[in-house]
Amino acid sequence: MVKIKIYDTPPRGEWADILARPRIDSGDLSRVVADILEAVRREGDEALRRYERQFDGVELSDIQVTPAEIEAAAAAVPNALKRAIGLAMENIGKFHASQAIGVKRVQTSPGVWCWQKAVGIERVGLYVPGGTAPLFSTVLMLAVPARLAGCREVVMCTPPNREGQIAPAILYAAREAGVDRIFKLGGVQAVGAMAFGTASVPSVGKIFGPGNRYVMEAKQQVQLCGVAIDMPAGPSEVMLVADAEADLRFLAADFLSQAEHGADSQSILVTGCRDLARRLPAEIERQAALLPRREWIERSLAHSSIVVIEDDDAQLDLVNAYAPEHLIVHRADAEAWAERVVNAGSVFLGYYTPESAGDYASGTNHTLPTSGYARAYSGVNLDSFTRKITFQHISPEGLRGLGPVIETMATAEQLEAHRQAVAVRLQTLNNGNDNDTVE
Amino acid sequence: MVKIKIYDTPPRGEWADILARPRIDSGDLSRVVADILEAVRREGDEALRRYERQFDGVELSDIQVTPAEIEAAAAAVPNALKRAIGLAMENIGKFHASQAIGVKRVQTSPGVWCWQKAVGIERVGLYVPGGTAPLFSTVLMLAVPARLAGCREVVMCTPPNREGQIAPAILYAAREAGVDRIFKLGGVQAVGAMAFGTASVPSVGKIFGPGNRYVMEAKQQVQLCGVAIDMPAGPSEVMLVADAEADLRFLAADFLSQAEHGADSQSILVTGCRDLARRLPAEIERQAALLPRREWIERSLAHSSIVVIEDDDAQLDLVNAYAPEHLIVHRADAEAWAERVVNAGSVFLGYYTPESAGDYASGTNHTLPTSGYARAYSGVNLDSFTRKITFQHISPEGLRGLGPVIETMATAEQLEAHRQAVAVRLQTLNNGNDNDTVE
Repeated sequence: MVKIKIYDTPPRGEWADILARPRIDSGDLSRVVADILEAVRREGDEALRRYERQFDGVELSDIQVTPAEIEAAAAAVPNALKRAIGLAMENIGKFHASQAIGVKRVQTSPGVWCWQKAVGIERVGLYVPGGTAPLFSTVLMLAVPARLAGCREVVMCTPPNREGQIAPAILYAAREAGVDRIFKLGGVQAVGAMAFGTASVPSVGKIFGPGNRYVMEAKQQVQLCGVAIDMPAGPSEVMLVADAEADLRFLAADFLSQAEHGADSQSILVTGCRDLARRLPAEIERQAALLPRREWIERSLAHSSIVVIEDDDAQLDLVNAYAPEHLIVHRADAEAWAERVVNAGSVFLGYYTPESAGDYASGTNHTLPTSGYARAYSGVNLDSFTRKITFQHISPEGLRGLGPVIETMATAEQLEAHRQAVAVRLQTLNNGNDNDTVE
Repeated sequence: MVKIKIYDTPPRGEWADILARPRIDSGDLSRVVADILEAVRREGDEALRRYERQFDGVELSDIQVTPAEIEAAAAAVPNALKRAIGLAMENIGKFHASQAIGVKRVQTSPGVWCWQKAVGIERVGLYVPGGTAPLFSTVLMLAVPARLAGCREVVMCTPPNREGQIAPAILYAAREAGVDRIFKLGGVQAVGAMAFGTASVPSVGKIFGPGNRYVMEAKQQVQLCGVAIDMPAGPSEVMLVADAEADLRFLAADFLSQAEHGADSQSILVTGCRDLARRLPAEIERQAALLPRREWIERSLAHSSIVVIEDDDAQLDLVNAYAPEHLIVHRADAEAWAERVVNAGSVFLGYYTPESAGDYASGTNHTLPTSGYARAYSGVNLDSFTRKITFQHISPEGLRGLGPVIETMATAEQLEAHRQAVAVRLQTLNNGNDNDTVE
């Protein structure tokens, strides 16, 4: 029996309780994770093989997936799935390509030119979790923008099964999206391998991708060693906003598609319509009866809720206070309403825009900030795979104009050598030498 | 006496040694920092006052700077400095405004619209270090882009002197650049206050700014609690590349302007010209004799070096391997040469473009990735103050087209409820209902 709490017009003082994320009993992972990382750093491949034996129950001969394995996998993927993957890749590619920022050369003062250039991180590492289902969509979401960003090399780790195999759809997606090297590694050891490098696995500048609590803890720890990561992460979540015309069946299906992610997932409906709020639990119950993963769904629904708030502004405040990873706006005026959303990962507008569209194929990325991280973090996007380098070129005339300003400021900061770096140049210019031009 | 190591055509196998950053004996800060952060989290303002007494030797009445203090500070700043700050702000504003990304609406499949919007982080916190000199330029580098990005509130912490005062130039710059609230707090307690919030200081989504090793450790630790930070950081550094026409005095001045930052700073010259390499130490010696901060400069120069490499490509490889925070290209063909730079924070092109220009007034940001972090991190830029939220709107026709693709992928990932979220909508459409339009 589904139990979903309904809050009717809760006072703002109670919002924090409603919006709290499910508590995760993380125990103390940090010691365990640190030990594995340290072993990988010290022993390299030997440690990788040992942990794969221990955690994935597999004795690896090659850590790297061979071309023959990739070919065999590609042959095993049904054509319908290949076509679907092809279309998803195309949409993901189009949307992420649109995020490219050009180089804009700006003359800030006469003869002072500044610009910024986004350059792909040279080598990036993608982590794709294992588990019961092959998450090939995550491969696309990470590898497609990595390639578009101009990363020179894209490596990927994903855990093998007990036979040392990786799901064909994952290998196929990786090949199609342009992953250069794939390693049969999961969990903390995969993160350690990409962070520190081993004989088989190269070290990378930035590690992307979801994972369980161990993987997340490992990413946080290697970040302290200078490796960048996409973002911190917690359990997935969705917030729905619905007007009175919203379709009850769509709302229930959206609730459940979140709930099937795991017991920690959370769904929250915000609506001004008491009738919808009252009828939703029964519709969820009806649809849930037809689904697998019942246990996860029930546990997830236990910390999900329905909130009735009639005032539009207050609804919006609640949404921004929660900062949802996914926000689905079941409203006729969805676009206008969503203009004031300031804290969210990805927003799905209108009755016919389910989260599943963005999870797979519409083009937006599905690697998004959970747990309220949307207040300060973006989801993965083209820029996540680049660094922005700034350039400046100052002509002799430019330095004549700007130099005195720099000297005044350097003097006020008591940085005399900073001032001198300008002064020696101005002296040379005043002696009539200016063998440099900028345009 | 200045000692600078000269390497002549070092084999690539020895590059790692040349390019190693100075080792910092960090001792174990982590416990000390964690204790202070925990005290701030638990006790709030009381802990702030206690640590300000302990570390800054000051008994604070008000933690927040008053409007009267800011007015008095503004009156105390000389007019020449005000004008310089005004021009610097203008240039920083122009360049950072040019980094704005517009909203591009992309139709990825027929009836499937996706776009991305950069939204300012609601509240950001700036840290401006204290010390002997008032680093008002850092105020400009952080507050100007924060305001341009549309952050709703910008708060700032900076340590007071023993009289409880903050340097007038810092307060003036903060007022001009639009900082909303300024707090007299330094070190770990300042970071803790902005991360967790106290009765006086609001919690922020992201913390920016440089600081000593305690401040950096504190930023890293609060990052694990969900607060974002601009980037990890270490000592400042510069790499110079010079052709045979480069001016020896400019090179020496650039070396020294880096060295005066602190004993840990590092400068490296890469040149194909043996004559320049041989003559540089004496010129550095000559200029250094005229400067204050001699002790820092000598210690910094002790781990600086000159590398002679004749081959252009090899020079470039060395630069990219080092990933310098600052790169000054003393070459006639600077712009063309620098096109292949892929790892750097900020690049200064040509003989008349000293690092000091970007430190203060040309418009580029001076908060840059040190210690090789440029391999994966950008310097602070407009985007650092925003999150990119993605939006999508799918029309009924769009879902008719894309829906089957999503269903195929969801089924292959064994996420049945994800498939259902599409299926219930397609069923409704097939029953003739499609009350939603997108354009």
